[in-house]
Amino acid sequence: MIYLPSYRNTKPHPHICGHSSPGLHHFNFTTSPESTQRPAKMADSRSPVVDVHTHMYPPEYITLLTTRTAIPLVRTFPGSPDPRLILLEAELPLLEKALSGECSGQLPGRPLTKDYASLPQKLHFMSAHGIDISVLSLANPWLDFLPPSTAVSFAQTIASSFETSCAANPGKLYFFAALPLTAPIPDLLAFIPTLLNLSHCRGVILGTTGLGQGLDDPDLLPVFEALAAASLPIFLHPHYGLPNSVFGPAAARGEYGHVLPLALGFPMETTIAVTRMFLSGVFDKVPSLRMILAHSGGTLPFLAGRIESCILHDAHLAAEYQKSGKDKKRRTIWEVLEEQVYLDAVVYSAVGLKAAIMASGEWGSERLMFGTDHPFFPPVGDDEGNEKWESVGLNRTAVAMVLGEGSKVGQMVMGGNAVRVLRLDEE
Amino acid sequence: MIYLPSYRNTKPHPHICGHSSPGLHHFNFTTSPESTQRPAKMADSRSPVVDVHTHMYPPEYITLLTTRTAIPLVRTFPGSPDPRLILLEAELPLLEKALSGECSGQLPGRPLTKDYASLPQKLHFMSAHGIDISVLSLANPWLDFLPPSTAVSFAQTIASSFETSCAANPGKLYFFAALPLTAPIPDLLAFIPTLLNLSHCRGVILGTTGLGQGLDDPDLLPVFEALAAASLPIFLHPHYGLPNSVFGPAAARGEYGHVLPLALGFPMETTIAVTRMFLSGVFDKVPSLRMILAHSGGTLPFLAGRIESCILHDAHLAAEYQKSGKDKKRRTIWEVLEEQVYLDAVVYSAVGLKAAIMASGEWGSERLMFGTDHPFFPPVGDDEGNEKWESVGLNRTAVAMVLGEGSKVGQMVMGGNAVRVLRLDEE
Repeated sequence: MIYLPSYRNTKPHPHICGHSSPGLHHFNFTTSPESTQRPAKMADSRSPVVDVHTHMYPPEYITLLTTRTAIPLVRTFPGSPDPRLILLEAELPLLEKALSGECSGQLPGRPLTKDYASLPQKLHFMSAHGIDISVLSLANPWLDFLPPSTAVSFAQTIASSFETSCAANPGKLYFFAALPLTAPIPDLLAFIPTLLNLSHCRGVILGTTGLGQGLDDPDLLPVFEALAAASLPIFLHPHYGLPNSVFGPAAARGEYGHVLPLALGFPMETTIAVTRMFLSGVFDKVPSLRMILAHSGGTLPFLAGRIESCILHDAHLAAEYQKSGKDKKRRTIWEVLEEQVYLDAVVYSAVGLKAAIMASGEWGSERLMFGTDHPFFPPVGDDEGNEKWESVGLNRTAVAMVLGEGSKVGQMVMGGNAVRVLRLDEE
Repeated sequence: MIYLPSYRNTKPHPHICGHSSPGLHHFNFTTSPESTQRPAKMADSRSPVVDVHTHMYPPEYITLLTTRTAIPLVRTFPGSPDPRLILLEAELPLLEKALSGECSGQLPGRPLTKDYASLPQKLHFMSAHGIDISVLSLANPWLDFLPPSTAVSFAQTIASSFETSCAANPGKLYFFAALPLTAPIPDLLAFIPTLLNLSHCRGVILGTTGLGQGLDDPDLLPVFEALAAASLPIFLHPHYGLPNSVFGPAAARGEYGHVLPLALGFPMETTIAVTRMFLSGVFDKVPSLRMILAHSGGTLPFLAGRIESCILHDAHLAAEYQKSGKDKKRRTIWEVLEEQVYLDAVVYSAVGLKAAIMASGEWGSERLMFGTDHPFFPPVGDDEGNEKWESVGLNRTAVAMVLGEGSKVGQMVMGGNAVRVLRLDEE
């Protein structure tokens, strides 16, 4: 049974400046007065370390991918010890070369190592990195490619698989269920409440396509309402990036590896999706909707000021707002960030983490949650086979640098916030 | 006559961490020991306030736009007191409606007020906002649409027009010249050194298209080399944004005004362009190239950590790097930000400004430069006709909040850095 989580900071702080100086409020890098009244359940002196951004492809999903002829798919190629996992549009040119038998010296996608699909390997990774609890999620592109007729039943299979894994590891594993958005809306609305029967489900993971028209599609509102009513937060994650054309010819020739679509396309996709939701009024229409944004919000923390300024200075929006006769103050993106949005701490720098915390409001450090993005970004080259992943270390070091190694707020970002927000002290 | 500017911080600080913890170095929000040895020339106690991001369309440019039938263009419509300036691809649907006489209640583009083309109005704006010096630049889309045969001669006309305006206002105005990148490369290489004869020219303004293939196009290297040899920094500015498709159907229907292309498309375009330059090795190949990035680098400061992590974890790049047999340490985006890149302070929030400063290295506050983006983002609605522009106030307040009102580093960002980097104490 799932209860309404006690989301914190749902009301604007009285001393947040109004629209004339968005993003210019005061910041605290200590704990809020309220937080001291809510000790973490763990008896020892430190909060548990929680990984809220950690993916798996359950065996049922891998089996499905091996039968597919379009991306996403899994294929075995001569000369590669592991099958290859091909997920991205950007990987198609190399896939075509490999399928035609052309030797380009480069195989498409990534090796499907045991890190992607093995539960014992996930537990080993957690233990090697001092992670006490993981909130698992299906990795992209989730169920976005399923035909409407089978979408919900396969989503149930995947959710059950995660639930079984979690139940077998009490207190260590929870999960975000994948929503099958290609299913008809009534099927979706029937599916969402059934997730409450899975005692380790703590939300849903979503891409940005929605029903095919993005997350600002009004047809999606009943889905957001159903998720809010079930107190299931959305973990929003990118997959589609940006059209390849923006990365230019050298990227198309493969000269930059996967860097541009992953480093820029992914976070920009998330930022565009959330901003579209904000502009369409989703957050106002579904005020109890809660979202956790991957990669510290893409780049929303940095661009929030510009978004607000562009809204303030848009003649069309100003005229529409006046015409609407609304007398209440327009809600800013800063307020949404402080009230309805949580960010993971997967940003790989102190610069980014500090901005993410500042953008999350006066008590922003109580809204950030550590994550690893495992099994993506494994060590390469000389480091291959390393137990300790540098991609994990970068994010852990950023937390220590910005908030202080072992500090109370540091521990909250490393796990305390996730325990509180996602009720990880309840089975 | 122009001398080699004494760009600061051209060598990496010895205590910057290596690739294992990019973006995790120490930050100073005070002045560097070196800066105290270089007092600004102004005799009074405060540094001048300098606006490095301020645009104009000289009369010659407006005349050209009124004769054009494709964007960019200037048109007069019945019922509009001012002619309309139509610049963006995203403005085409409304332009077509207006040209066909269809009344949509919304005119395309923006009113071409005197703020866009009048020198007295620019000086009035400066005086109303306490700006002592402006470094003018032609606004987007610059000369990107000119046929190769006329590109250089029109660029000369525009540069002469700016030079005349600056010379008429000694000590108050300087400019960045527009480079006509549609011209044949030999013409361009001949044009660049002639800019040194214009005593108020302090660099060039560029969009991201390059010769049509982006700024990572190897054919552009001689141009970068010529600019570096002439000590003319590039002020990089967006115009083309992202393909409209990424903003979805509601944006295409005009429901969000210009917010998405301006607030997200613009900074993302800049970020992609600079990252492509970085990945292609432009900064290594032309180490004396200097760039000033509009809008605090788009969103480069926030994403730099992710860019570095994606490079570190890219199997293809790692293999290529090893194959190349390079024994020297790979130069990181953080090092480029600290050595070859300056950022303007046009980011509209304390969150963004702090990230921009932190990303710019140990003495990052000596690399940021205040700007207004005038004449864009004028007051709308009730505020129209206001002397004080809120878009300016947002950026000024951010500097005061992050660095302290009237502090020495605050004054450097407000003008001292621009005076030093762009030699605004030399006529």
